[in-house]
Formats: sequence, C-alpha cells, structure tokens
Amino acid sequence: MKKTVAEAIAFQGERGAFSEEAVRKLVGPKASPLPAQRFEDVFRHLKEGRVTGAVVPIENTLAGSVHENYDHLQHFELPIVGETSVRIVHNLIAPEGVRFSKIRRVFSHPVALNQCLDFFLRNPQFERIPFYDTAGSVKMVMEKAYPDAAAIASRVAAEIYGARILRRSIESDRRNFTRFFLLRTAEYARRHPIEAAPNATWKTSLVFSTRNIPGALFRALSAFALRDLNLTKIESRPLRGKPWEYLFYVDLLCHVETEAAQNALRHLRELADFLRVLGCYPKGA
Amino acid sequence: MKKTVAEAIAFQGERGAFSEEAVRKLVGPKASPLPAQRFEDVFRHLKEGRVTGAVVPIENTLAGSVHENYDHLQHFELPIVGETSVRIVHNLIAPEGVRFSKIRRVFSHPVALNQCLDFFLRNPQFERIPFYDTAGSVKMVMEKAYPDAAAIASRVAAEIYGARILRRSIESDRRNFTRFFLLRTAEYARRHPIEAAPNATWKTSLVFSTRNIPGALFRALSAFALRDLNLTKIESRPLRGKPWEYLFYVDLLCHVETEAAQNALRHLRELADFLRVLGCYPKGA
Repeated sequence: MKKTVAEAIAFQGERGAFSEEAVRKLVGPKASPLPAQRFEDVFRHLKEGRVTGAVVPIENTLAGSVHENYDHLQHFELPIVGETSVRIVHNLIAPEGVRFSKIRRVFSHPVALNQCLDFFLRNPQFERIPFYDTAGSVKMVMEKAYPDAAAIASRVAAEIYGARILRRSIESDRRNFTRFFLLRTAEYARRHPIEAAPNATWKTSLVFSTRNIPGALFRALSAFALRDLNLTKIESRPLRGKPWEYLFYVDLLCHVETEAAQNALRHLRELADFLRVLGCYPKGA
Repeated sequence: MKKTVAEAIAFQGERGAFSEEAVRKLVGPKASPLPAQRFEDVFRHLKEGRVTGAVVPIENTLAGSVHENYDHLQHFELPIVGETSVRIVHNLIAPEGVRFSKIRRVFSHPVALNQCLDFFLRNPQFERIPFYDTAGSVKMVMEKAYPDAAAIASRVAAEIYGARILRRSIESDRRNFTRFFLLRTAEYARRHPIEAAPNATWKTSLVFSTRNIPGALFRALSAFALRDLNLTKIESRPLRGKPWEYLFYVDLLCHVETEAAQNALRHLRELADFLRVLGCYPKGA
C-alpha cells in the first residue's frame, strides 16, 4: 500500500489564488499549498528544498504569456513534470454587510481588473485600484473592513476569507483560461517517474537559441516539421548580453523519448547555439 | 524652400522620459512632444487627430517586448513609418541639497528598478518603490521635496526638473537598449513618403495568424526563408476568442515593394487565416 504524505507545494499569491486551484488539480488532495509573494520566491523555495513541488502560471488565453516565468524556467533549471489549465472566473467580493450600492473602490490584480472592463463600463462609479494579488485583495478588504470597497477574485478566495460574493462571473470574456506548470527538482523527477494513462498524449518543452544568420529560426523549426512533430507554442525572450538576439521556448506534442523527438533534438543541436529540454509531461485537459 | 512647422508627437510618460529622446531621434527638432499617461492614450491621440505622430517602445534588450503595444498596433491600425533605438542609462536623481547618505527610498518605473539590481545590492539601505514612470518619479520627488527620497531616470529628466544627478549610469547591464516605433495615420503616411538614403536598408513588419494545423508556423516562415528574406524578430500574442491560438508579429529585413517581399506575401496569404502589413520603414541605427 502506498503511503500518502502531505506534500508542500509552493505557489504565488495568497490562499485562494487561482494558482492554488492549479496546485489541487496537479497534485491532488495530498498537496499542502505554500503561498509565496513573488514568482521568484516560488522557484527558490523548490530549488532550496523547502517544498517538493512548485506551480506557476505560464500563459493566459487573454493576457498572453507570463514572460517572467519563462526567464525563471531557464535560470532555475527545475524540470516541468505536469501542466493543467484553470478556467478563470472573476467575482466581485466584499465583507458581509457591504452593499453593492455603497461600493466605490474595487481592488484586484491589474490583469484581473483589465479582464472585467465591461463590468467597469456598466459601473462607472467604481474606481479600479491595482493590488499585487487577486486573493490578497479579498484578504485585505476583509481585514480593513472598508464600508465602500470590494475585491475581484475567485470563489475559493471568498470562502477562505469568509467574504460574500456580490456579483458572479464578471469577466468580459468567458474564454479565459490560465495554463500552469508543475515543477519538481531534477532529483525528485528522477526518483518519481510520472504516472500517466498508457494512451496519454505527451508534451515536451524546450528552450534554444539560434545562430544569428538568415533563416536560422526556419531551419530550427524544420527539425520538428520534417518529422511531423506538432509545435503548440513558441515564445521568444531576449538573450542576455546579446542585444536583438533571442531565446526561443517551444512546446512539442510528443514524448521526448520517441525516436522522432530524439532525431529532432539531434538535428536541432547541429543548428542551435544552445539547447535544453525543460521537461516532458502529459498534456493537460 | 520647405516650411518647418512644429509637429505634435505623442509619447508615454512625463517630459524627460526615454520615449521623448526617441521622439527627438525620430522626428528631429521640429517635434513638439506631447506626454500621455498610458500607451493606449498615445495611440488614441494619433487615431483621433490630436497629434500627427506617435512614438512607442516595442522592445528592450533586457526586459523583452512591450506586449501591450503589439496588441495596440493590431487594434489601432496606425502604420509604422520609422524605428530607432535608444541606449538606456539610469541615473540616481534627487533634489538639490539631498545627500546620498540621507536617501532611504528610491522611486522609479518597476522595469528601471529591476535594471539597477546590482546598485541596490550595494546599497541595501534603499527601499525600492515602484512608480508609473521614470521621469515622472523625478518630477514627483522634486514636487514633494522629500529629504530622504531619490528617483531613477534619464539625464534629460534631471535637467528638465532642475534636479541633481547623484550617481551616473547605475544600470547593471550596459547592453540596455530600447527600440521605438514612429507611427503616423494611414492618410499622413500616404501624403508624406518616407525620405531615406538611396542605399538604406528597409524593414517590413507584419502580423498574421495561421490555421491551427501541424507545421503551420513552419510553412508560414517558409514563405520568407524560400526567398532568402531575413526575419529579425518574431513575437507571439494570444488570439482573442480562440484559446491556445496565436497571432505572430514578424519583422523582415526588406522593403515591402520588392519582388521577393510581394511574392512572400502572396505565398503567406495562401497559408494564413489573417495577414496585415504593419509598416515598411528604414532600419534604425
């Protein structure tokens, strides 16, 4: 029989953040989520062994990539072992007794405020005030007990802080999803092979830089295209110390151990100045 | 003889911002720079005819792309007619009479604060306080006349607000450049062809989306590679309404009217769901 031990998993934000929902989806009930203030702290907690896993957002279908986390993936060298996506539903949340008609100030993360623009157009009496975290804004309006303030955050954040949801699902676009990665240390990943269904679809994430010559990116992508490997995402980030050159992060729809993937990596190594596999993990739902 | 009339050019930030330096480089002494608070306001001023040009940052060699401005380029449909890059030099700036040893708080834009991390490591007595703009932080510390506060901004910002530079060039990495675009209205661009040296190198910027099929991006890039057109930048942004699909922004090293470029565009139209030329302009220094 397997032992079930609580696993400390770091995430950015306060309890009730969307990242905490991703922790539950990726690690299950044995997860013991550890809040951290900044993304860098999340990576550092794992690197320095204070947690056994870390969950970070990597892209949102409306706001785009979380570029800072691409940089951390490259810097911290912690393998990606899982991914999931979370439907983002924003709610207007206030302490018990605060009436909708009394609200003048609404606190939340700037991305969340931007994702509720139609709601703010319909309610011009609300001032939008940026805060460092969605769930943290609920915690704060509860502690301060302002008579005229509300927060925008998840349903779970309202529950955790004992606050009341005044308006549900106030986001402008329902096609609002955030994709998260589960990271482990290299040693943990070696000792705990990923369990997946036999017919699971896998993804492999890579980062590489090309020589600064015409057609370099095209040739690099040919390593995948010539082997019918499907590329689901490409992201470019500046290469430190080489102005106007870039690192490319790509996600491929394949297991890294397949013959096609191994051939593609060998081919890409001929063309790339630098190449590293960031992880291989089952495709999220 | 040509008439020289002052030209109102919108930029984001306060007087003395790095964007204002880009305005001078792109439009010359006839530019009359108009500060605006947000990037969206800069685009709107031009779209609604309050200025004849707009200058916006598009990427920095350390921080990466200004993704918001890619989205505005797509939304506002204002042609790019020029580019330049500005070397970013950060200085510690305070009112006359404030001594370095008295400083405890340093205000600036979060990107500028992040680009001076070594300076902050050497001076742990300084608290970093994010502000909406570099030059604006100088304006503010001058107005408030705090005895213990300084700002991080350009040399020009210190001059404009009559402040003193206490430490020069405090950025961690000297290879710090920001690339800016000059935008005009389509009508202005039609009536004022771009003047460039006969042997100038040109760039063409495009945005396109591909069908969501394997190898789609590779095929799209083949339109350029097969004609030896050099791609200097690619950026992906989420496609609104289609989760996990993307718009691609590319810069090509060619004039849009050349035969190779026209053939590449025709080829790309066969493959792309959507394609638009964002501008054709002389390559900046």
